[in-house]
Amino acid sequence: MQAAGRVPAHAMASVTPAYDELARSFTRQHHLDHLQALAYWDQAAMMPAGGAEARAGALAEVAALVHQARTAPGLARALAQAQDEPLDDFQRANLREMAREWQAAAALPEHLVQRSQLATARCGQAWRQQRPANDWAGFLRNFRAVVATAREEAQLLSQRSGLRPYDALMDRFEPGMTCARLDPLFADLRSWLPGLVQQVQARQSGQTVLQPQGPFPVEAQRQLCLQVMQWLQFDFNRGRLDVSTHPFAGGVPEDVRLTTRYETGEFITSLLGAIHETGHGRYEQGRPQAWLGQPVSLARSMGIHESQSLSFEMQLGRHPGFIAHLVPMIRQAFGDQPAFEPDNLLRLVTRVQPGLIRVDADELTYAAHVMLRYDIERPLIEGEIAPEDIPALWDTGMAALLGQDTRGNFRDGPMQDVHWPEAMFGYFPCYTLGAVYAAQWFAAMRRSLPGLDASIHAGDLTPVFGWLDRHIWQQASRWTTDELATRASGEVLNPMHYRAHLEARYLGTPVMA
Amino acid sequence: MQAAGRVPAHAMASVTPAYDELARSFTRQHHLDHLQALAYWDQAAMMPAGGAEARAGALAEVAALVHQARTAPGLARALAQAQDEPLDDFQRANLREMAREWQAAAALPEHLVQRSQLATARCGQAWRQQRPANDWAGFLRNFRAVVATAREEAQLLSQRSGLRPYDALMDRFEPGMTCARLDPLFADLRSWLPGLVQQVQARQSGQTVLQPQGPFPVEAQRQLCLQVMQWLQFDFNRGRLDVSTHPFAGGVPEDVRLTTRYETGEFITSLLGAIHETGHGRYEQGRPQAWLGQPVSLARSMGIHESQSLSFEMQLGRHPGFIAHLVPMIRQAFGDQPAFEPDNLLRLVTRVQPGLIRVDADELTYAAHVMLRYDIERPLIEGEIAPEDIPALWDTGMAALLGQDTRGNFRDGPMQDVHWPEAMFGYFPCYTLGAVYAAQWFAAMRRSLPGLDASIHAGDLTPVFGWLDRHIWQQASRWTTDELATRASGEVLNPMHYRAHLEARYLGTPVMA
Repeated sequence: MQAAGRVPAHAMASVTPAYDELARSFTRQHHLDHLQALAYWDQAAMMPAGGAEARAGALAEVAALVHQARTAPGLARALAQAQDEPLDDFQRANLREMAREWQAAAALPEHLVQRSQLATARCGQAWRQQRPANDWAGFLRNFRAVVATAREEAQLLSQRSGLRPYDALMDRFEPGMTCARLDPLFADLRSWLPGLVQQVQARQSGQTVLQPQGPFPVEAQRQLCLQVMQWLQFDFNRGRLDVSTHPFAGGVPEDVRLTTRYETGEFITSLLGAIHETGHGRYEQGRPQAWLGQPVSLARSMGIHESQSLSFEMQLGRHPGFIAHLVPMIRQAFGDQPAFEPDNLLRLVTRVQPGLIRVDADELTYAAHVMLRYDIERPLIEGEIAPEDIPALWDTGMAALLGQDTRGNFRDGPMQDVHWPEAMFGYFPCYTLGAVYAAQWFAAMRRSLPGLDASIHAGDLTPVFGWLDRHIWQQASRWTTDELATRASGEVLNPMHYRAHLEARYLGTPVMA
Repeated sequence: MQAAGRVPAHAMASVTPAYDELARSFTRQHHLDHLQALAYWDQAAMMPAGGAEARAGALAEVAALVHQARTAPGLARALAQAQDEPLDDFQRANLREMAREWQAAAALPEHLVQRSQLATARCGQAWRQQRPANDWAGFLRNFRAVVATAREEAQLLSQRSGLRPYDALMDRFEPGMTCARLDPLFADLRSWLPGLVQQVQARQSGQTVLQPQGPFPVEAQRQLCLQVMQWLQFDFNRGRLDVSTHPFAGGVPEDVRLTTRYETGEFITSLLGAIHETGHGRYEQGRPQAWLGQPVSLARSMGIHESQSLSFEMQLGRHPGFIAHLVPMIRQAFGDQPAFEPDNLLRLVTRVQPGLIRVDADELTYAAHVMLRYDIERPLIEGEIAPEDIPALWDTGMAALLGQDTRGNFRDGPMQDVHWPEAMFGYFPCYTLGAVYAAQWFAAMRRSLPGLDASIHAGDLTPVFGWLDRHIWQQASRWTTDELATRASGEVLNPMHYRAHLEARYLGTPVMA
């Protein structure tokens, strides 16, 4: 044994052979994920239309390879054996996440995965034409198959996990979140948010807000976005910004691909979009480098992911100190005009106005859009309602939650989002969870960093990023979401901070600077 | 049997089960090739530097998957069984190409493929720094391993095919080509080309050639390239033009990705580069759509591929009628100047000047660069010389073939090309085969289309593309190269047309317009 120190590590028999085998398998999956992510990004940002069919074939191939890798015969045995191996805490957390990924994949037979992909591909593709045509009947024909396979998946995942069907779908995006936890949270929001919206609208009704006057050339907008992303410390050595119809954060943690889109009549949307995606991007770039390829290095959940994009877009992006430093960059890009006065710009980006479209919603009314969808997709997945019941429920919910009339307007109603045609049931709650968590992070940040707002007013965002890096990004999936939140902020999800943040920002209640 | 016509095709037992199984396997390989091609293109044209390591891991993964698919256990049996199945001519040609691909892949054990990839990756990466540093000694350290694995591969391929080792490597790029055929071809070129070069140089020594005066803005160059590519009928619905350090044609036939690069001091290089790559691109786009995914749909060989790029860059690109139509586009891009006179531009692109660098060589001296490399890599692969013998042989060959002194100048000598660090031994002859074939195609075209040159002078390139599409692109790998050439031009490879073309263009001998 005395010579052991001189024996090369790889020559020694491992004491964790099953864990090592799993780790190698997940590294291979990471490589497949890389190819898949690249193909998706390219499809959205680069690919000419004529390449679509060949790309679909290649994507189906890699999806099958990923599924095969995730459900390879030896994995179940290795997962069981590794439980008894002498793992350190980080490895044990990794093993927990490996088991989670395997459970979710192994519950679904390959023919169902393929059927589901076929149904969503068909529905999603047709939806792109059907939405502008307001063709609900046509949409419904494809959407029924999407719902049918999603229900099957929910049933199988439910049987394996013991969760109720909708929870089993939501668990893929937000591990540990259930309707039993979500319902009281949403009930709380429903109790004060509509009143707050009315209060703020009354308060803002007397304000004058100047609209920026275009045109805003695309190249100037792009340069502005790049400059702001530099300020937000996005690492361009490991990422890019490009253009796509629907902005997203994609690529791989080693090479993050963000997109935005530009319209010459308006620049605020593309800029705030880029800021939002940069939040996602920094989370991905900040994942622990040494563990990339292993499940423990993955972002904790989509709710936590949205908490990063919303920390950037909402907590920072609408902060008066942030706006003050944004203005010179805007003036440099487009010249000066009265609408660029910091106070006016702040009023512009905090304007509250209930509307039909979720992605255009302001910070205050956004949650109503989420709850409306949750109220429909939960019973839809659990068979209490049918796809054809959606429009009536949508109309009722929209009137109740946002006072809007969407009757007959399917295009700006239940057909507006890509999530349902793509069977992403259980995702919507993550947006509001993200908003709630983001407020909770900034409350915790302010407690531990009393000079935080002064820093932001001075244009120094490093303290914010340092806190997020230490408490969120570097932690990746090392802890459960509740543990992560508790270690970061001293408590599990608590909507109090969200309410306090909104009241402070929109009513001037002196909770935040 | 009378109801057979009403039974859906898929419900009938196939009479070619082994062939069908092979076809499915090659379709899967096509999907993997798609992912690989995309990852390579992105790496060269889009990827930020920090993404390199993760990309290398993903590329190694997909290379392993491709090799596994190409050498899957059932393929040998299926290939043997399919020989006895009732295949039509096209299927039989496909089976021949399947067997060829399988032979080449199955001859090499996976550990050798991996070792070779490692050696070339290491050598190729270091070469990027070593070349500018003129560091031959450093290069040699890595290059020895590249040569060693290439020799092993050549031996194994040789044992399987019965070809001599260098021929076995060349066969991967140029099926059917051997030293026994190449040596007389090169001997023929050696007998008249040096004399022709001297004659042309003497003739051109009295000419005045004006150099275009820059700067030429990158965006204007890009627009010019795009406009010329439109004229060349490149299908932008199934392809793109981007920028990379080393221009190439990549992507997949359904979505061809071409690259060029721009220097503001000069625009001819990027323009002719784009024209060259467009030749490759149109061959790829022109491959028979219905057979994509099957080996019979692949480009016939790299020599035939170069015959397309050189048909575009040399046969068309230096044609007086082509130049006459290029000039207005150039003037539109950069304004007018005396150097843009058609006659001057023609003199500029047909200027003959022996030099050190292959990729900068003119049409007349290019073949000498190829023969120099062939004279070295053939004995290198067959063990007659060692890697350290290369510089002396290079110096001698360069002096004899091109009258240039390269002693001590490794950077512009044997280290100038990416081919050797990447173990692409046997590729260089394809460039000259391409030039010879291109001349042969245009000679055949002129025989069958007497109005060809008048069309080109009128700016109408459709007859050229129609001929290439019918005789080359749509034929893909349906025939052996000799059959393809004979069907297209009435004879196998014949350097007479190359000589006639060069003498006509550079001495004004009245063979072509």
